[in-house]
Amino acid sequence: MNSRSSSAQMSVRDRIVEAALDEFFASGFHGANMRSIAKIAGCSAANVYNHFENKSALLVEILRVASDEQFTATRNALRKAGADPAERWRLAVAAHAHFVATHPRECLVANTELRYLDEIDRKRVVGSRDAQEQLFVEIATKGSEQGVFSVGRVSEAVTAVLTMCSGIPLWFRPDGPLSAREVADDYGDFALNLMGFRPAGAEITR
Amino acid sequence: MNSRSSSAQMSVRDRIVEAALDEFFASGFHGANMRSIAKIAGCSAANVYNHFENKSALLVEILRVASDEQFTATRNALRKAGADPAERWRLAVAAHAHFVATHPRECLVANTELRYLDEIDRKRVVGSRDAQEQLFVEIATKGSEQGVFSVGRVSEAVTAVLTMCSGIPLWFRPDGPLSAREVADDYGDFALNLMGFRPAGAEITR
Repeated sequence: MNSRSSSAQMSVRDRIVEAALDEFFASGFHGANMRSIAKIAGCSAANVYNHFENKSALLVEILRVASDEQFTATRNALRKAGADPAERWRLAVAAHAHFVATHPRECLVANTELRYLDEIDRKRVVGSRDAQEQLFVEIATKGSEQGVFSVGRVSEAVTAVLTMCSGIPLWFRPDGPLSAREVADDYGDFALNLMGFRPAGAEITR
Repeated sequence: MNSRSSSAQMSVRDRIVEAALDEFFASGFHGANMRSIAKIAGCSAANVYNHFENKSALLVEILRVASDEQFTATRNALRKAGADPAERWRLAVAAHAHFVATHPRECLVANTELRYLDEIDRKRVVGSRDAQEQLFVEIATKGSEQGVFSVGRVSEAVTAVLTMCSGIPLWFRPDGPLSAREVADDYGDFALNLMGFRPAGAEITR
Protein backbone atom coordinates (compact mmCIF):
# COMPACT_ATOMS: atom_id res chain seq x y z
CA MET A 1 0.00 0.00 0.00
CA ASN A 2 3.01 2.24 0.34
CA SER A 3 4.02 3.74 -2.98
CA ARG A 4 7.31 4.90 -1.49
CA SER A 5 8.60 1.33 -1.25
CA SER A 6 10.15 0.12 -4.48
CA SER A 7 8.42 -2.94 -5.85
CA ALA A 8 11.63 -4.97 -5.49
CA GLN A 9 11.47 -4.65 -1.70
CA MET A 10 7.79 -5.54 -1.52
CA SER A 11 6.43 -9.00 -0.78
CA VAL A 12 4.27 -10.64 -3.44
CA ARG A 13 1.23 -10.02 -1.28
CA ASP A 14 2.04 -6.31 -0.97
CA ARG A 15 2.62 -6.06 -4.70
CA ILE A 16 -0.77 -7.65 -5.35
CA VAL A 17 -2.48 -5.19 -3.00
CA GLU A 18 -0.66 -2.26 -4.61
CA ALA A 19 -1.58 -3.50 -8.10
CA ALA A 20 -5.21 -3.96 -7.07
CA LEU A 21 -5.29 -0.40 -5.75
CA ASP A 22 -4.03 0.87 -9.11
CA GLU A 23 -6.57 -1.25 -10.93
CA PHE A 24 -9.56 -0.25 -8.74
CA PHE A 25 -8.50 3.39 -9.02
CA ALA A 26 -8.18 3.27 -12.82
CA SER A 27 -11.10 1.00 -13.73
CA GLY A 28 -13.39 0.81 -10.71
CA PHE A 29 -14.40 -2.35 -8.88
CA HIS A 30 -16.53 -3.67 -11.75
CA GLY A 31 -13.90 -2.83 -14.38
CA ALA A 32 -11.04 -4.42 -12.44
CA ASN A 33 -10.15 -8.05 -12.96
CA MET A 34 -7.86 -10.51 -11.22
CA ARG A 35 -5.81 -11.24 -14.36
CA SER A 36 -4.88 -7.57 -14.88
CA ILE A 37 -4.04 -7.27 -11.19
CA ALA A 38 -1.73 -10.30 -11.47
CA LYS A 39 -0.09 -8.79 -14.55
CA ILE A 40 0.56 -5.44 -12.85
CA ALA A 41 1.87 -7.25 -9.76
CA GLY A 42 4.18 -9.37 -11.95
CA CYS A 43 2.83 -12.72 -10.79
CA SER A 44 0.39 -15.38 -11.95
CA ALA A 45 -3.36 -15.20 -11.46
CA ALA A 46 -3.09 -18.39 -9.37
CA ASN A 47 -0.71 -16.53 -7.10
CA VAL A 48 -3.25 -13.73 -6.63
CA TYR A 49 -5.92 -16.31 -5.72
CA ASN A 50 -3.52 -17.87 -3.21
CA HIS A 51 -3.60 -14.62 -1.27
CA PHE A 52 -7.10 -13.32 -1.97
CA GLU A 53 -10.24 -15.29 -2.70
CA ASN A 54 -11.68 -12.70 -5.07
CA LYS A 55 -11.83 -8.99 -5.96
CA SER A 56 -14.01 -8.24 -2.94
CA ALA A 57 -11.40 -9.68 -0.56
CA LEU A 58 -8.78 -7.41 -2.16
CA LEU A 59 -10.98 -4.34 -1.91
CA VAL A 60 -11.79 -5.13 1.74
CA GLU A 61 -8.07 -5.44 2.53
CA ILE A 62 -7.25 -2.11 0.85
CA LEU A 63 -10.09 -0.25 2.53
CA ARG A 64 -9.50 -1.74 5.99
CA VAL A 65 -5.80 -0.92 6.03
CA ALA A 66 -6.37 2.62 4.74
CA SER A 67 -9.13 3.28 7.25
CA ASP A 68 -7.04 1.96 10.16
CA GLU A 69 -4.01 4.03 9.12
CA GLN A 70 -6.15 7.14 8.83
CA PHE A 71 -7.68 6.55 12.25
CA THR A 72 -4.19 6.14 13.74
CA ALA A 73 -3.04 9.41 12.15
CA THR A 74 -5.98 11.24 13.70
CA ARG A 75 -5.43 9.73 17.15
CA ASN A 76 -1.72 10.57 17.01
CA ALA A 77 -2.57 14.19 16.28
CA LEU A 78 -4.99 14.23 19.21
CA ARG A 79 -2.33 12.87 21.54
CA LYS A 80 -0.37 16.08 20.96
CA ALA A 81 -3.42 18.32 21.38
CA GLY A 82 -4.43 19.81 24.71
CA ALA A 83 -7.88 19.76 26.30
CA ASP A 84 -9.42 22.66 24.36
CA PRO A 85 -12.13 21.08 22.18
CA ALA A 86 -11.78 23.73 19.46
CA GLU A 87 -8.07 22.99 19.11
CA ARG A 88 -8.66 19.24 19.28
CA TRP A 89 -11.29 19.53 16.56
CA ARG A 90 -9.06 21.64 14.31
CA LEU A 91 -6.07 19.31 14.72
CA ALA A 92 -8.11 16.13 14.26
CA VAL A 93 -9.65 17.41 11.01
CA ALA A 94 -6.27 18.65 9.76
CA ALA A 95 -4.73 15.20 10.42
CA HIS A 96 -7.64 13.49 8.69
CA ALA A 97 -7.39 15.85 5.70
CA HIS A 98 -3.62 15.38 5.53
CA PHE A 99 -4.06 11.63 5.28
CA VAL A 100 -6.55 12.06 2.44
CA ALA A 101 -4.23 14.44 0.56
CA THR A 102 -1.33 12.00 0.87
CA HIS A 103 -3.34 8.80 0.13
CA PRO A 104 -5.58 9.91 -2.73
CA ARG A 105 -6.02 6.53 -4.41
CA GLU A 106 -7.05 4.68 -1.24
CA CYS A 107 -9.47 7.43 -0.25
CA LEU A 108 -11.06 7.84 -3.68
CA VAL A 109 -11.48 4.10 -4.09
CA ALA A 110 -13.02 3.93 -0.61
CA ASN A 111 -15.54 6.59 -1.54
CA THR A 112 -16.52 5.32 -4.94
CA GLU A 113 -16.21 1.52 -4.70
CA LEU A 114 -17.34 0.70 -1.15
CA ARG A 115 -20.94 0.50 -2.33
CA TYR A 116 -20.14 -2.50 -4.52
CA LEU A 117 -19.18 -4.71 -1.57
CA ASP A 118 -21.86 -7.01 -0.23
CA GLU A 119 -23.37 -6.46 3.23
CA ILE A 120 -20.90 -8.64 5.17
CA ASP A 121 -17.78 -7.28 3.47
CA ARG A 122 -19.02 -3.73 3.85
CA LYS A 123 -19.48 -4.29 7.57
CA ARG A 124 -15.85 -5.43 7.88
CA VAL A 125 -14.76 -2.10 6.42
CA VAL A 126 -17.18 0.39 7.90
CA GLY A 127 -16.45 -0.53 11.52
CA SER A 128 -13.23 1.45 11.49
CA ARG A 129 -14.90 4.28 9.57
CA ASP A 130 -17.75 4.46 12.06
CA ALA A 131 -15.29 4.54 14.96
CA GLN A 132 -13.49 7.46 13.32
CA GLU A 133 -16.72 9.34 12.79
CA GLN A 134 -17.68 8.67 16.40
CA LEU A 135 -14.38 10.18 17.57
CA PHE A 136 -15.09 13.37 15.60
CA VAL A 137 -18.65 13.51 16.94
CA GLU A 138 -17.34 13.25 20.51
CA ILE A 139 -14.89 16.12 20.08
CA ALA A 140 -17.50 18.28 18.37
CA THR A 141 -20.11 17.49 21.02
CA LYS A 142 -17.71 18.58 23.75
CA GLY A 143 -17.16 21.87 21.90
CA SER A 144 -20.89 22.29 21.64
CA GLU A 145 -21.45 21.55 25.35
CA GLN A 146 -18.74 24.04 26.31
CA GLY A 147 -20.42 26.67 24.13
CA VAL A 148 -17.52 27.23 21.74
CA PHE A 149 -19.39 25.59 18.84
CA SER A 150 -22.79 26.93 17.86
CA VAL A 151 -24.17 24.64 15.12
CA GLY A 152 -27.45 22.98 15.97
CA ARG A 153 -27.00 19.47 14.60
CA VAL A 154 -23.49 18.39 15.54
CA SER A 155 -23.39 14.98 13.88
CA GLU A 156 -24.77 16.38 10.60
CA ALA A 157 -21.97 18.98 10.72
CA VAL A 158 -19.37 16.26 11.37
CA THR A 159 -20.59 14.35 8.32
CA ALA A 160 -20.32 17.52 6.22
CA VAL A 161 -16.74 18.06 7.39
CA LEU A 162 -15.62 14.47 6.76
CA THR A 163 -17.24 14.61 3.32
CA MET A 164 -15.46 17.80 2.36
CA CYS A 165 -12.15 16.18 3.35
CA SER A 166 -12.92 13.10 1.28
CA GLY A 167 -13.12 15.28 -1.85
CA ILE A 168 -9.53 16.52 -1.59
CA PRO A 169 -8.11 13.87 -4.00
CA LEU A 170 -10.46 15.17 -6.71
CA TRP A 171 -8.40 18.34 -7.11
CA PHE A 172 -5.28 18.21 -4.97
CA ARG A 173 -1.99 17.50 -6.78
CA PRO A 174 1.29 17.07 -4.86
CA ASP A 175 3.06 19.22 -7.47
CA GLY A 176 0.39 21.95 -7.36
CA PRO A 177 0.62 25.37 -5.71
CA LEU A 178 -0.40 24.14 -2.23
CA SER A 179 1.33 21.49 -0.14
CA ALA A 180 -0.62 18.70 1.55
CA ARG A 181 0.21 20.40 4.86
CA GLU A 182 -1.24 23.75 3.75
CA VAL A 183 -4.41 22.11 2.44
CA ALA A 184 -4.77 20.12 5.68
CA ASP A 185 -4.38 23.27 7.79
CA ASP A 186 -6.90 25.15 5.64
CA TYR A 187 -9.39 22.31 6.07
CA GLY A 188 -8.80 22.40 9.83
CA ASP A 189 -9.72 26.09 9.75
CA PHE A 190 -12.74 25.50 7.49
CA ALA A 191 -13.96 22.83 9.91
CA LEU A 192 -13.49 25.09 12.90
CA ASN A 193 -15.44 27.86 11.17
CA LEU A 194 -18.16 25.47 10.02
CA MET A 195 -19.00 24.52 13.62
CA GLY A 196 -19.83 28.17 14.28
CA PHE A 197 -16.74 28.56 16.44
CA ARG A 198 -16.80 31.39 18.93
CA PRO A 199 -13.65 31.71 21.08
CA ALA A 200 -14.46 31.18 24.77
CA GLY A 201 -15.28 34.49 26.41
CA ALA A 202 -15.70 36.19 23.03
CA GLU A 203 -18.77 38.20 22.39
CA ILE A 204 -20.12 39.43 19.09
CA THR A 205 -21.30 43.01 19.18
CA ARG A 206 -23.00 44.84 16.37
CA MET B 1 -34.93 11.69 -15.49
CA ASN B 2 -37.99 12.50 -13.46
CA SER B 3 -38.97 9.65 -11.20
CA ARG B 4 -42.31 11.33 -10.47
CA SER B 5 -43.56 10.63 -13.99
CA SER B 6 -45.05 7.21 -14.37
CA SER B 7 -43.24 5.16 -16.98
CA ALA B 8 -46.41 4.98 -19.08
CA GLN B 9 -46.31 8.72 -19.69
CA MET B 10 -42.63 8.77 -20.58
CA SER B 11 -41.23 8.65 -24.10
CA VAL B 12 -39.02 5.68 -24.99
CA ARG B 13 -36.02 7.98 -24.90
CA ASP B 14 -36.88 9.19 -21.40
CA ARG B 15 -37.42 5.62 -20.23
CA ILE B 16 -34.00 4.65 -21.58
CA VAL B 17 -32.35 7.56 -19.76
CA GLU B 18 -34.19 6.70 -16.54
CA ALA B 19 -33.21 3.02 -16.87
CA ALA B 20 -29.58 3.95 -17.54
CA LEU B 21 -29.55 6.12 -14.41
CA ASP B 22 -30.81 3.16 -12.35
CA GLU B 23 -28.22 0.89 -13.94
CA PHE B 24 -25.27 3.30 -13.48
CA PHE B 25 -26.36 3.91 -9.89
CA ALA B 26 -26.63 0.21 -9.07
CA SER B 27 -23.69 -1.20 -11.02
CA GLY B 28 -21.42 1.70 -11.94
CA PHE B 29 -20.39 2.70 -15.44
CA HIS B 30 -18.23 -0.37 -15.99
CA GLY B 31 -20.83 -2.75 -14.55
CA ALA B 32 -23.69 -1.30 -16.60
CA ASN B 33 -24.54 -2.73 -19.99
CA MET B 34 -26.81 -1.66 -22.81
CA ARG B 35 -28.82 -4.91 -22.76
CA SER B 36 -29.78 -4.52 -19.11
CA ILE B 37 -30.67 -0.89 -19.73
CA ALA B 38 -32.92 -1.93 -22.61
CA LYS B 39 -34.56 -4.58 -20.40
CA ILE B 40 -35.28 -2.10 -17.57
CA ALA B 41 -36.60 0.41 -20.11
CA GLY B 42 -38.84 -2.25 -21.64
CA CYS B 43 -37.47 -1.93 -25.16
CA SER B 44 -35.00 -3.68 -27.45
CA ALA B 45 -31.25 -3.10 -27.34
CA ALA B 46 -31.51 -1.88 -30.95
CA ASN B 47 -33.93 0.76 -29.74
CA VAL B 48 -31.44 1.93 -27.14
CA TYR B 49 -28.74 2.20 -29.81
CA ASN B 50 -31.15 4.22 -31.99
CA HIS B 51 -31.14 6.91 -29.31
CA PHE B 52 -27.63 6.59 -27.84
CA GLU B 53 -24.48 5.42 -29.53
CA ASN B 54 -23.02 3.80 -26.42
CA LYS B 55 -22.91 3.86 -22.61
CA SER B 56 -20.78 7.00 -22.63
CA ALA B 57 -23.38 8.91 -24.62
CA LEU B 58 -26.02 7.89 -22.07
CA LEU B 59 -23.85 8.93 -19.13
CA VAL B 60 -23.08 12.27 -20.79
CA GLU B 61 -26.80 12.91 -21.33
CA ILE B 62 -27.65 12.10 -17.69
CA LEU B 63 -24.85 14.23 -16.28
CA ARG B 64 -25.45 17.19 -18.59
CA VAL B 65 -29.15 17.40 -17.85
CA ALA B 66 -28.61 17.05 -14.09
CA SER B 67 -25.89 19.67 -14.05
CA ASP B 68 -27.98 22.13 -16.08
CA GLU B 69 -31.02 21.61 -13.84
CA GLN B 70 -28.92 22.11 -10.73
CA PHE B 71 -27.42 25.30 -12.14
CA THR B 72 -30.90 26.60 -12.95
CA ALA B 73 -32.08 25.86 -9.39
CA THR B 74 -29.17 27.86 -7.98
CA ARG B 75 -29.74 30.80 -10.30
CA ASN B 76 -33.46 30.85 -9.50
CA ALA B 77 -32.63 31.04 -5.79
CA LEU B 78 -30.24 33.92 -6.46
CA ARG B 79 -32.91 35.82 -8.37
CA LYS B 80 -34.91 36.03 -5.14
CA ALA B 81 -31.88 37.02 -3.06
CA GLY B 82 -30.92 40.63 -2.44
CA ALA B 83 -27.49 42.20 -2.85
CA ASP B 84 -25.97 41.06 0.45
CA PRO B 85 -23.20 38.58 -0.51
CA ALA B 86 -23.58 36.59 2.74
CA GLU B 87 -27.28 36.05 2.08
CA ARG B 88 -26.64 35.29 -1.60
CA TRP B 89 -24.00 32.73 -0.61
CA ARG B 90 -26.23 31.06 1.97
CA LEU B 91 -29.20 30.85 -0.41
CA ALA B 92 -27.12 29.63 -3.36
CA VAL B 93 -25.57 26.83 -1.30
CA ALA B 94 -28.95 25.89 0.18
CA ALA B 95 -30.46 25.66 -3.34
CA HIS B 96 -27.50 23.58 -4.54
CA ALA B 97 -27.76 21.27 -1.51
CA HIS B 98 -31.52 20.94 -1.96
CA PHE B 99 -31.04 19.77 -5.54
CA VAL B 100 -28.52 17.16 -4.37
CA ALA B 101 -30.85 15.91 -1.63
CA THR B 102 -33.73 15.58 -4.08
CA HIS B 103 -31.67 14.09 -6.98
CA PRO B 104 -29.43 11.61 -5.18
CA ARG B 105 -28.93 9.14 -8.04
CA GLU B 106 -27.91 11.76 -10.60
CA CYS B 107 -25.52 13.44 -8.16
CA LEU B 108 -23.92 10.23 -6.89
CA VAL B 109 -23.43 8.91 -10.41
CA ALA B 110 -21.93 12.26 -11.44
CA ASN B 111 -19.42 12.05 -8.58
CA THR B 112 -18.41 8.45 -8.98
CA GLU B 113 -18.67 7.75 -12.70
CA LEU B 114 -17.55 10.99 -14.37
CA ARG B 115 -13.95 9.85 -14.25
CA TYR B 116 -14.69 6.97 -16.61
CA LEU B 117 -15.64 9.26 -19.49
CA ASP B 118 -12.96 10.02 -22.03
CA GLU B 119 -11.50 13.52 -22.34
CA ILE B 120 -13.95 14.82 -24.95
CA ASP B 121 -17.06 13.46 -23.26
CA ARG B 122 -15.87 14.75 -19.89
CA LYS B 123 -15.44 18.22 -21.35
CA ARG B 124 -19.05 18.19 -22.58
CA VAL B 125 -20.17 17.60 -19.00
CA VAL B 126 -17.79 19.68 -16.94
CA GLY B 127 -18.55 22.94 -18.74
CA SER B 128 -21.80 23.37 -16.85
CA ARG B 129 -20.14 22.23 -13.59
CA ASP B 130 -17.32 24.72 -14.03
CA ALA B 131 -19.81 27.51 -14.69
CA GLN B 132 -21.62 26.62 -11.47
CA GLU B 133 -18.41 26.61 -9.48
CA GLN B 134 -17.50 29.96 -11.03
CA LEU B 135 -20.82 31.43 -9.89
CA PHE B 136 -20.12 30.33 -6.31
CA VAL B 137 -16.58 31.70 -6.47
CA GLU B 138 -17.91 35.07 -7.62
CA ILE B 139 -20.39 35.34 -4.76
CA ALA B 140 -17.78 34.27 -2.20
CA THR B 141 -15.19 36.65 -3.62
CA LYS B 142 -17.64 39.54 -3.25
CA GLY B 143 -18.19 38.56 0.38
CA SER B 144 -14.46 38.46 0.87
CA GLU B 145 -13.94 41.88 -0.75
CA GLN B 146 -16.67 43.39 1.40
CA GLY B 147 -15.00 41.95 4.50
CA VAL B 148 -17.89 39.74 5.63
CA PHE B 149 -15.97 36.54 4.78
CA SER B 150 -12.58 35.98 6.33
CA VAL B 151 -11.16 32.76 4.80
CA GLY B 152 -7.88 33.22 3.01
CA ARG B 153 -8.28 31.02 -0.04
CA VAL B 154 -11.78 31.60 -1.35
CA SER B 155 -11.81 29.15 -4.24
CA GLU B 156 -10.43 26.33 -2.06
CA ALA B 157 -13.26 27.07 0.40
CA VAL B 158 -15.84 26.99 -2.42
CA THR B 159 -14.58 23.58 -3.51
CA ALA B 160 -14.86 22.33 0.07
CA VAL B 161 -18.45 23.55 0.29
CA LEU B 162 -19.53 22.04 -3.05
CA THR B 163 -17.88 18.76 -2.04
CA MET B 164 -19.70 18.60 1.28
CA CYS B 165 -22.99 19.14 -0.57
CA SER B 166 -22.16 16.36 -3.02
CA GLY B 167 -21.96 13.87 -0.13
CA ILE B 168 -25.57 14.39 0.97
CA PRO B 169 -26.92 11.39 -1.01
CA LEU B 170 -24.57 9.11 0.92
CA TRP B 171 -26.66 9.49 4.08
CA PHE B 172 -29.80 11.50 3.39
CA ARG B 173 -33.06 9.53 3.14
CA PRO B 174 -36.36 11.24 2.22
CA ASP B 175 -38.12 9.24 4.94
CA GLY B 176 -35.48 10.05 7.57
CA PRO B 177 -35.77 12.50 10.48
CA LEU B 178 -34.76 15.57 8.43
CA SER B 179 -36.49 16.91 5.33
CA ALA B 180 -34.53 17.89 2.22
CA ARG B 181 -35.41 21.50 3.03
CA GLU B 182 -33.98 21.27 6.58
CA VAL B 183 -30.79 19.63 5.33
CA ALA B 184 -30.43 22.27 2.61
CA ASP B 185 -30.87 25.10 5.12
CA ASP B 186 -28.35 23.52 7.51
CA TYR B 187 -25.83 23.25 4.67
CA GLY B 188 -26.47 26.91 3.81
CA ASP B 189 -25.58 27.76 7.42
CA PHE B 190 -22.53 25.46 7.44
CA ALA B 191 -21.30 27.15 4.27
CA LEU B 192 -21.82 30.59 5.71
CA ASN B 193 -19.88 29.64 8.84
CA LEU B 194 -17.13 27.95 6.83
CA MET B 195 -16.32 31.22 5.03
CA GLY B 196 -15.52 32.78 8.39
CA PHE B 197 -18.63 34.93 8.21
CA ARG B 198 -18.62 38.06 10.31
CA PRO B 199 -21.75 40.19 10.07
CA ALA B 200 -20.94 43.62 8.63
CA GLY B 201 -20.15 46.06 11.43
CA ALA B 202 -19.72 43.22 13.92
CA GLU B 203 -16.64 43.09 16.03
CA ILE B 204 -15.33 40.21 18.07
CA THR B 205 -14.13 41.24 21.50
CA ARG B 206 -12.39 39.00 23.96
